Amino acid sequence: MRPGGDVSARAELIGIDWGTSNLRVMRIAGGGEVLDVRSDPRGAARLAPGHFSDVLHDVAGDWFDDGTPALVCGMAGARGKWREAAYRPCPAGLADLSPVCLGNDSQAILIVPGVALSQDGALEDVMRGEETQVMGLADAPGRRLVVTPGTHSKWIRVEDNAIQDFRTFMTGDLFAAIRTETVLGQDMGNPGIDMDAFQDGVSRALADDALTAALFSVRVERLSDRLAATSTADYLSGLLIGAEIRAQGPADGRSVTLIGAPALNTRYAAALAVAGFEDVHTLDGPTATARGLWRIHEAHRR
Amino acid sequence: MRPGGDVSARAELIGIDWGTSNLRVMRIAGGGEVLDVRSDPRGAARLAPGHFSDVLHDVAGDWFDDGTPALVCGMAGARGKWREAAYRPCPAGLADLSPVCLGNDSQAILIVPGVALSQDGALEDVMRGEETQVMGLADAPGRRLVVTPGTHSKWIRVEDNAIQDFRTFMTGDLFAAIRTETVLGQDMGNPGIDMDAFQDGVSRALADDALTAALFSVRVERLSDRLAATSTADYLSGLLIGAEIRAQGPADGRSVTLIGAPALNTRYAAALAVAGFEDVHTLDGPTATARGLWRIHEAHRR
Repeated sequence: MRPGGDVSARAELIGIDWGTSNLRVMRIAGGGEVLDVRSDPRGAARLAPGHFSDVLHDVAGDWFDDGTPALVCGMAGARGKWREAAYRPCPAGLADLSPVCLGNDSQAILIVPGVALSQDGALEDVMRGEETQVMGLADAPGRRLVVTPGTHSKWIRVEDNAIQDFRTFMTGDLFAAIRTETVLGQDMGNPGIDMDAFQDGVSRALADDALTAALFSVRVERLSDRLAATSTADYLSGLLIGAEIRAQGPADGRSVTLIGAPALNTRYAAALAVAGFEDVHTLDGPTATARGLWRIHEAHRR
Repeated sequence: MRPGGDVSARAELIGIDWGTSNLRVMRIAGGGEVLDVRSDPRGAARLAPGHFSDVLHDVAGDWFDDGTPALVCGMAGARGKWREAAYRPCPAGLADLSPVCLGNDSQAILIVPGVALSQDGALEDVMRGEETQVMGLADAPGRRLVVTPGTHSKWIRVEDNAIQDFRTFMTGDLFAAIRTETVLGQDMGNPGIDMDAFQDGVSRALADDALTAALFSVRVERLSDRLAATSTADYLSGLLIGAEIRAQGPADGRSVTLIGAPALNTRYAAALAVAGFEDVHTLDGPTATARGLWRIHEAHRR
């Protein structure tokens, strides 16, 4: 038997979060509590359609022995992956996210569709996986802004529990590329060391709408010895996260919910504070995913 | 004897453009005409102070036999390189750019200083090499905007032939990093194929102040098949160049002079046209450098 989790408790759902670069399989109790987790580096990006079933069986085949239903979210539902679960249009609430059946598998496995934003009939933006995290939030009337920070951060406008519209920012992807491939990355360490430098970067980006010029300030701050080499990664991170927040306009008392890894949630909360956002909530990403999978399962079970 | 150039004509100056990644040595006639050029990949980035003289001798030692004076511009004058030629403050015209003597070299070699922009005593931006190109423009009263497109594009406000202020954009550096290191680079070819896609990228960036979100449109345009794989590099290039132009505000009849490689000048001229700039001039980069070196030499010779 593998280690970890409350293996004795009864799972009512097998939740499968199949992202681009990682697979997480969870035994989920009624209500969305995670009883046990297994992870695997075989993300959807490198798998052909015929391989998903084998990989899943390899990672957690024993969990399917008793006929527990399974629900998948993430890139596994993209075109050319396990099986396409076509994007649902905005606004998209719990009732709109009816999962798609895998069909020819003996095991009952369903896939949550992604959500697409269109304007005048033209596709504007897409998400796969984040819709499940948004559904994992407790029901609440009114408006809120939900942020899923990461490689491709999404800022999602939610009203009465339905996704109204959203926008994707290349933040994490750009951060990594700038660090490894540009002149700014010379001698750059890891972020998470100098919170003052991070907040300076946020402030700079909030005050400057020319990001590709503001980025050059990393070099000038180093040249002038105002920024230590160990602080440049935090300053750069602040610039990029600040640019996301700048695009949201003034805080205006809006409520923001961050759904991400704890360390990222902390950084974004600090950046939002610089920009005057005062009503900020955080939720751990995997927790939101498990709850969302449970709520989608519950809303659509037959 | 090496091939190329009008070797028989008399050189009045040896011009040395020592950039980060490349060295160009020119025999220059009175007035700034280039008689002969030699290039070498030993850029200033990888050379220790003691090696510059040897490399120069190796590449063009025979050109120094008759005691012709020599003038250097570019990164060779940075701190920790051949010899530091400290930044001169803005505004900086021909009279302010007095070259610094190398000192202990037997050959009379001088180095053109870079230019720094400061605000309230704090360093804001720096240039090394572009100041020489600006000095290579024909004298003209009044204002113009000079652009040196490239890895780190500079937008330079010139008034009565003096550099008033300027701003550096990470455009070329970011383009390369995005192409090799982010999800947008998948299947991306080279730019220079689809001018419509380039102009679409420019228009998109001109209308959108959230660049890190606009960049994600590369992926959405591909997903929706509105953009062919072969056109994505042009679209991305348009987004980044468009972001530079957006930061300049409305055209307002301003005159712009582009100093760069012909292919880059053409792209920027097309992008400026999209933004309504009508008075656009172009000058080849090496030509501007040679003329600038000549004019600085002439203004400061003893």
